[in-house]
Amino acid sequence: MAGCKVRAAEPGDCEEIMRMIQELAEYEKLSDQVKNTAEGLRRDGFEEPSPLFHCLVAEAEDEKERSEGPRLVGYALSYYSYSTWKGRSLYLEDLYVMPSYRGKGIGSKLLTATAEMCLFLGCARLQLSVLDWNQPAISFYQSRGGCNLSDKEGWRMIRFLPDDLQRMISKSTERDSYNAV
Amino acid sequence: MAGCKVRAAEPGDCEEIMRMIQELAEYEKLSDQVKNTAEGLRRDGFEEPSPLFHCLVAEAEDEKERSEGPRLVGYALSYYSYSTWKGRSLYLEDLYVMPSYRGKGIGSKLLTATAEMCLFLGCARLQLSVLDWNQPAISFYQSRGGCNLSDKEGWRMIRFLPDDLQRMISKSTERDSYNAV
Repeated sequence: MAGCKVRAAEPGDCEEIMRMIQELAEYEKLSDQVKNTAEGLRRDGFEEPSPLFHCLVAEAEDEKERSEGPRLVGYALSYYSYSTWKGRSLYLEDLYVMPSYRGKGIGSKLLTATAEMCLFLGCARLQLSVLDWNQPAISFYQSRGGCNLSDKEGWRMIRFLPDDLQRMISKSTERDSYNAV
Repeated sequence: MAGCKVRAAEPGDCEEIMRMIQELAEYEKLSDQVKNTAEGLRRDGFEEPSPLFHCLVAEAEDEKERSEGPRLVGYALSYYSYSTWKGRSLYLEDLYVMPSYRGKGIGSKLLTATAEMCLFLGCARLQLSVLDWNQPAISFYQSRGGCNLSDKEGWRMIRFLPDDLQRMISKSTERDSYNAV
């Protein structure tokens, strides 16, 4: 590959970003969880008064290369998070490079550009999650200075889906009705 | 305690919220990491064009009670996150109830109000992190339908601090200079 440019994503990139989101979810063996669409990405990242995420893309620079392969070959999508201890922070939700474009420094370019953005935006930390069996990803981040906080401090992730939340609210309402008797 | 009302935080609550943030960090044995201030909370949550977080507080309702104890006895602070798979989501950064006010359903009230807010805002999931030794917190969330994703899917948290990011950027610049020779 001749070269690859990292730049901010534009609304017209959303179809290709969505394709790569799907590819990453397949690699993570969790693709049944993908419900988002290119239209959703466009709305959430580019049409909201306060965009819900920032996205960087890696674009093939060579015209010939592009005509034979994909225009976009990687992306890094992040959003503001908030640390009550440190203030404004950045969370890297996804970093992905297509398999046949790996080993060319594109992942490093995307991560470094995210690091620059993080400091530029005045964020106090950059956090992300990896799957424990994804050793290439863990090595990639650790060799660049990332600390495995789940190992070091013991953090574990808990998730509620809308049905869980609805059940919780219903139970609480039932309890309040009972107490009011 | 006579009663306790859960309501949205106001700028004038930030001193008491900051006190409780410090108390929670002490309980988590990580209080050396707290650098935020009441002023920082006020700016980030109430003065930004797009507030960086939402905060709910639990307030003692009884005037006499208040004059003898703290006005605020718990808080739940969350912010928008973004799932590339599901779209707009909510992340619960902290949920805390002061030790002497536990066992009265205040934590449940705060979590249920956060669940209602999550659904009202059209969020696709509510996530949070707990420390692996904090069994009371893990039981609290699991008994209300929360799924431990670190156990189920293997997610681990990675963190970069600003110094790590700066080192990463410097190394990348050195490498580019070398390659340019």
